[in-house]
Amino acid sequence: MKLYDSHRAPNPRRVRWCMVEKGIEDIEIVPIDIFKGEHRTPEYRARAGLSNVPVLELDDGTAITESIAICRYLESRYPEPNLFGRDAKEIAIVEMWMRRAEMLLATPLMLAVRHSHPALAALEKQVPEFAATYLAGAQRALPLFNRRLGESPFIAGERLTIADIVAFTGLDFARMVKFRPDASLNHVMQWAETMRQRPAAAAGA
Amino acid sequence: MKLYDSHRAPNPRRVRWCMVEKGIEDIEIVPIDIFKGEHRTPEYRARAGLSNVPVLELDDGTAITESIAICRYLESRYPEPNLFGRDAKEIAIVEMWMRRAEMLLATPLMLAVRHSHPALAALEKQVPEFAATYLAGAQRALPLFNRRLGESPFIAGERLTIADIVAFTGLDFARMVKFRPDASLNHVMQWAETMRQRPAAAAGA
Repeated sequence: MKLYDSHRAPNPRRVRWCMVEKGIEDIEIVPIDIFKGEHRTPEYRARAGLSNVPVLELDDGTAITESIAICRYLESRYPEPNLFGRDAKEIAIVEMWMRRAEMLLATPLMLAVRHSHPALAALEKQVPEFAATYLAGAQRALPLFNRRLGESPFIAGERLTIADIVAFTGLDFARMVKFRPDASLNHVMQWAETMRQRPAAAAGA
Repeated sequence: MKLYDSHRAPNPRRVRWCMVEKGIEDIEIVPIDIFKGEHRTPEYRARAGLSNVPVLELDDGTAITESIAICRYLESRYPEPNLFGRDAKEIAIVEMWMRRAEMLLATPLMLAVRHSHPALAALEKQVPEFAATYLAGAQRALPLFNRRLGESPFIAGERLTIADIVAFTGLDFARMVKFRPDASLNHVMQWAETMRQRPAAAAGA
């Protein structure tokens, strides 16, 4: 298998993080420079279907895009340590928190960076009002995660799951626009420090 | 189990659609009137964690929010007909197309309705520019789905999956702002007609 990867984008980082947690070392990494438009060539689009990074190319040539679809495929093929839940109820709880992390934090923060950081003006028709709205939304969502992290050490429960990876990589990417959780959110701050110290945090941060 | 449901919102419709496809009749439906703010009461928030609809309350009291997390729980408990894929590769392909349907069509269309329909002014601080941007994004994404539906009868392959349910309910909700795929997108039009004729289409549309 091959992973078409971009070290500067937030979504590929979710996949690399999963790979480190699971100790996966037998997937070839193919770097794609999105600032050079390497994801917009006809060859790339023919392979991936879209100009998206990351793409996991399976051994039969099937291309899987969408970072969470790739992570779920890795979960099927490399089941330990489990990152998506083990039984019906745990799977639902992990999916619920992964989606909250994505929709309330990671996606708004990613869009805020894309709509306001000077380095990304080449990739996006930037609308500053979008950035402000998305940043405010993420700030409003953080107390929900702080309450949750006061009840359990990780977002979906007692152990690390894909929900933590989505939330942390989203928050960490937003450091590009100097976004930081308010220091009063002590459970979020403590969890973030735990995440930062995992070996996977260094995988192309 | 109980499903806290709102017949006028698009995300609960995904869950009802899954229930009809799977023939699930043993879950109690509790209607929530979001225009009366029934999802914002302290009791509701204490149960659900958020002011979101739908919520699936399990028999042990656990509340699951996020429509896809609920549908995936139903898939675990009522596995046939399969809506999320059967093996590692199919599961990844379904997740990829479900996410494309959600991120490229359903979410932008839902936000466009929320930011422009007069009936929803009570629920959202409406920004007309957001609506225009989101509608344009959905229009740009439709040719991808048209190409795909020229290759297979359903979005993720040979049979109906959650990807079709997310795409169709998203498109159908956007009729509220008179959004329609261009008639030249013949594969999308034909697929939409097939979807409209399924018994599940009548489940609280």
